Amino acid sequence: MLSVSTNIPTREIIEEAHARIRPFIHKTSVLTSHTVNEISGAEVYFKCENLQKIGAFKIRGGMNAVLQLNEEERQKGVATHSSGNHAQAIAYAAREVGCKAYIVMPENAPEIKKKAVAGYGAEIIFCKPTLQAREEALNEVVERTGATFVHPFNNYHVIAGQATAAKELIEEIPDLDSILTPVGGGGLLSGTALSVHYFSPKTIVVAGEPEGAQDAYLSLQEGKIVSAPYIKTIADGLLTNLGDKTFPLIQKYVKSIVTVTDDEIIAAMRLVWERMKVVVEPSGVVPLAALLKEKEIFNGKKVGIIFSGGNVDLGNLPF
Amino acid sequence: MLSVSTNIPTREIIEEAHARIRPFIHKTSVLTSHTVNEISGAEVYFKCENLQKIGAFKIRGGMNAVLQLNEEERQKGVATHSSGNHAQAIAYAAREVGCKAYIVMPENAPEIKKKAVAGYGAEIIFCKPTLQAREEALNEVVERTGATFVHPFNNYHVIAGQATAAKELIEEIPDLDSILTPVGGGGLLSGTALSVHYFSPKTIVVAGEPEGAQDAYLSLQEGKIVSAPYIKTIADGLLTNLGDKTFPLIQKYVKSIVTVTDDEIIAAMRLVWERMKVVVEPSGVVPLAALLKEKEIFNGKKVGIIFSGGNVDLGNLPF
Repeated sequence: MLSVSTNIPTREIIEEAHARIRPFIHKTSVLTSHTVNEISGAEVYFKCENLQKIGAFKIRGGMNAVLQLNEEERQKGVATHSSGNHAQAIAYAAREVGCKAYIVMPENAPEIKKKAVAGYGAEIIFCKPTLQAREEALNEVVERTGATFVHPFNNYHVIAGQATAAKELIEEIPDLDSILTPVGGGGLLSGTALSVHYFSPKTIVVAGEPEGAQDAYLSLQEGKIVSAPYIKTIADGLLTNLGDKTFPLIQKYVKSIVTVTDDEIIAAMRLVWERMKVVVEPSGVVPLAALLKEKEIFNGKKVGIIFSGGNVDLGNLPF
Repeated sequence: MLSVSTNIPTREIIEEAHARIRPFIHKTSVLTSHTVNEISGAEVYFKCENLQKIGAFKIRGGMNAVLQLNEEERQKGVATHSSGNHAQAIAYAAREVGCKAYIVMPENAPEIKKKAVAGYGAEIIFCKPTLQAREEALNEVVERTGATFVHPFNNYHVIAGQATAAKELIEEIPDLDSILTPVGGGGLLSGTALSVHYFSPKTIVVAGEPEGAQDAYLSLQEGKIVSAPYIKTIADGLLTNLGDKTFPLIQKYVKSIVTVTDDEIIAAMRLVWERMKVVVEPSGVVPLAALLKEKEIFNGKKVGIIFSGGNVDLGNLPF
């Protein structure tokens, strides 16, 4: 049952998750860029989850969770709080399986994300933009409807789903020296770390994180989950703290976290849009910014980067 | 010899061109979009030449022309006038074969295009932004250097190269009811029409053209090459008149030309960037704007669209 999965995903669980969600997701393209290779000195393969359904990898975890609802749970629907891509993932997944989705969003969420969630037929519950208001609104919805809460990252079904992006990349491009992802709550990073552990154990996992939301970097240093000292970054998908399910996996399997400034994020984003011709959101280019910042480490290496998403407000670009 | 190819490309010539340029170009991805299919009522396949080397299909024609220089011509180099993607194509192709490229560009060309051409090692000759100044500068360069002039579109080697984009699309997605391209000077459109004629004769070819540069539309109506009554469009790759090699092919093999406004072009561009997550330049989305404008014609049809390029000045976006 969805709400009681307390086991770290095994190799088999990730394989099952992949088989379960495959009919509902894209096997996304892997792109290369001569320019990026020249600038970085590495041989870089970009897994384009910005070209994924809903424009982000989040559909993998959301779909895997929603597909495991039993009949009774399905009738009551699913709920989550998110202003971002997870909201769209749950709304989309619920529509695919024919159940209701209740999405708690802060009133000030970007219009494009509100529209997308509503477009998938979900019921949106607006709340004040605070963590407390968000949790209260979610609890109220769950109590009223009996819907199953699918956490954006601190959920093993979600983690197993996110793990399938790196699994596909490893299957298509073997022998990667490193894989880089962004880190927010750690769902993609911990899933990637698990897939690397099972399917490509010689590969090193590194994360990029904004300096203005460096909770994961500090948590690894201090050996416990801590918050960022301040939050100020354009990478609005990476603001949350790690969870008690994602943190231990990151502690165990992730080599290091590289923090980058907003200027570095914007420069990487511009490089990707201008030279690779794909729309990647600020959070999604953070691992490329990390690679370019620490390029001597990756010089001559074969590196995979997960472009996590491409949902950008075109009315509010940094260039 | 390059400058004297006076024959309309045959099926074999296009096949040879494809074999010749294949090592130097990408076989670009074909993308689909659930959203575009819903909005248009058609089943649309996008051939992503924005993801091509130099960010545009132009490398196909440029490469095919430059690869056919004989040894003596190669030593003297190639020359062209272009402020756009053809300039980059010739500069890139020349570098690949190890010959000099002389590119005449108007002083006011976008910085990003100047930088790209210079980055490929070409010599740029700046001129006043008039057709006369451009031609004079080109003649001067050709006289001084003996370089071979490669016209941006009115050249059968170039047309045969551009034809390979539609050839690849037809090979990957058979049984298309229609293929839509933009039309500027007509190199891509006439090449596409030839490939369709040889490799998929039941497919209909339609072009999209900006209302503010509607020379091709009017030329088809009047049965001779005419200029647009005024030039005013965001689609800066589509400003030129047809040539005496492209026009007869378009007359013979193209079903119709749909003109679209800049507002329609910008709306299509926004749709592509927001939902498909790829960077396509205004000229490149013109055929999609045409499809959306005339969607009842394409309703229920299987349609191919060539996204011709993705070279956009990010500092000067229409949204």
